[in-house]
Amino acid sequence: MIKPIEWCGSSLRFLDQTKLPREEYYIETDDYCVVIDAITSLKVRGAPLIGIAASYGVCLAALKYFHCGFESFSSHVQNAIDELAASRPTAVNLFWALERMKRILQSARHVEEAVSSLVHEADTILQIEKESCLMIAKHGAALFSDSVSVLTHCNTGALATGGHGTALGVILQLHKQGKIRNVYVDETSPLLQGARLTTWELKKIGIEPILITDSMAGTLMQQKMIDCVIVGADRIASNGDVANKIGTYTLAVLSHHHTIPFYVAAPTSTIDSKIKNGNEIPIEERGEEELTVIQGQRVAPLDLQTYSPAFDVTPAHLVAAIITDIEVFKSPYSFD
Amino acid sequence: MIKPIEWCGSSLRFLDQTKLPREEYYIETDDYCVVIDAITSLKVRGAPLIGIAASYGVCLAALKYFHCGFESFSSHVQNAIDELAASRPTAVNLFWALERMKRILQSARHVEEAVSSLVHEADTILQIEKESCLMIAKHGAALFSDSVSVLTHCNTGALATGGHGTALGVILQLHKQGKIRNVYVDETSPLLQGARLTTWELKKIGIEPILITDSMAGTLMQQKMIDCVIVGADRIASNGDVANKIGTYTLAVLSHHHTIPFYVAAPTSTIDSKIKNGNEIPIEERGEEELTVIQGQRVAPLDLQTYSPAFDVTPAHLVAAIITDIEVFKSPYSFD
Repeated sequence: MIKPIEWCGSSLRFLDQTKLPREEYYIETDDYCVVIDAITSLKVRGAPLIGIAASYGVCLAALKYFHCGFESFSSHVQNAIDELAASRPTAVNLFWALERMKRILQSARHVEEAVSSLVHEADTILQIEKESCLMIAKHGAALFSDSVSVLTHCNTGALATGGHGTALGVILQLHKQGKIRNVYVDETSPLLQGARLTTWELKKIGIEPILITDSMAGTLMQQKMIDCVIVGADRIASNGDVANKIGTYTLAVLSHHHTIPFYVAAPTSTIDSKIKNGNEIPIEERGEEELTVIQGQRVAPLDLQTYSPAFDVTPAHLVAAIITDIEVFKSPYSFD
Repeated sequence: MIKPIEWCGSSLRFLDQTKLPREEYYIETDDYCVVIDAITSLKVRGAPLIGIAASYGVCLAALKYFHCGFESFSSHVQNAIDELAASRPTAVNLFWALERMKRILQSARHVEEAVSSLVHEADTILQIEKESCLMIAKHGAALFSDSVSVLTHCNTGALATGGHGTALGVILQLHKQGKIRNVYVDETSPLLQGARLTTWELKKIGIEPILITDSMAGTLMQQKMIDCVIVGADRIASNGDVANKIGTYTLAVLSHHHTIPFYVAAPTSTIDSKIKNGNEIPIEERGEEELTVIQGQRVAPLDLQTYSPAFDVTPAHLVAAIITDIEVFKSPYSFD
């Protein structure tokens, strides 16, 4: 089992996902600022895993300020929570997890209790995401009776969740049940999470994926090589609009055009019932270098304008079902 | 003006497009096999330019066998034509140009006449493609009265044609007429002709493009940032089905979904009236390394399956108009 993150009692150990698949390089730190940098620079990524990492980041801050008086401790840890919350804007699991940590901090009566409860809560958040993955896999796989060829986008496996994965968890479960013919993996430009991470992870668990570029999905559908698309999510609005990795919306439109079911798999921690629809989801824009420099190699002229949204929003009407840990939701969606 | 190819009397000089934008590196050769390798390895690419390069390749073969007797000369040059024809399968301009060269060879009465006529014919083919570009640009620009934001894919400029370009020629003409707001350029994965070549070429001619990944086109259309899509073509069937760089079909489906006009710009040398529809167009599949190694950097695990069609086929009903050197054709298409 791939362990992308691990709490080591007084430090956090995590896999630097930017170095995969070339190197399995782990970072161990007792500094919550290193966790913030890891989230911002995508060393740690995937909506559920960001929430988990941030929770343990709060624990590191709590240990750092352990020797302060309770008032100063609380203030410092609250600041750390605010800093962690500013690391990335789109995935709601980050805010969900930090909200839970904040409530624990606020209800503690002294430093020792706070530290112990915060660590316990972070462990609980990791455990919730792990169990969610198992339930998502079970619910998702039950949608299929015959064997299928699946297309997925970005990375939604252990690397993204700490558990068996969301969309990739469903695919793994289908594989166990002998219901997978082919798994096609979008390279997921510009950061190649599909090419770098998903293929690596699938091969580790004994599935031989077929890598394509994002731009090939259309022709595969046209040639009837894809039976369904399963992707993860970074935030789901109460009407069922889904923010996910850039390129997801294009897959949803292509699926619609070819009458192929388009599924979203996500834990309930990804649902943001406070917002009405996708227009309210903040979409992170990334810097120019993510498009002009690939794996350290410049691939475009200097001084070039880019537009680089990291996510897009798929309207609910294009989503055949949202597979969660609780149940499989179908349109019309209403998450309150 | 960018000169991607130049006949130097007894040798051919061409720009190695795989090294762009890092380096403007020219190769000069008197060996037609170097031209075959340049086409196969995409040092020279773009449907019209492949035809031009192959024509001059025939001239190099003719010069090589100049001292043979006429029968042996003819046989050697015909073999060279067959070898050049086998370099890439999809773009029909290659076969159109080589068919013209073959007719010249067959009508020559002696070696000296053959050599001189072949060089003259290759010059004519280059001239035809250059003039086609001018007419395409004129016809294409006339479609627009207001200024527009355009999305294009792959490279269809001087680098692809030897002239001002097809789709990029139209964009250049619109720019001259003050009718361009923004030019969005798809990176065009996996070989990044958009990121590497089109942005470089546009900046050279004074247009500041905005680079996006192929997977971002959908969200740009959703946000009403794109008024039309203009792409080139590698082969157009008599019913108007269009083979073009992989990812084109996805753009056509996205355009259809968002009610955005999707235009194809190509010289008549790209029309293959001998075939009924897109099903008959041979689609080249490229090797695993084009997906797993980007600019010399391995980005995916070793021993990985890939599927890598270099082109896809857009059905005629998704094409708003086909802009050629003769006129602008609209549906229903019938090229006989």
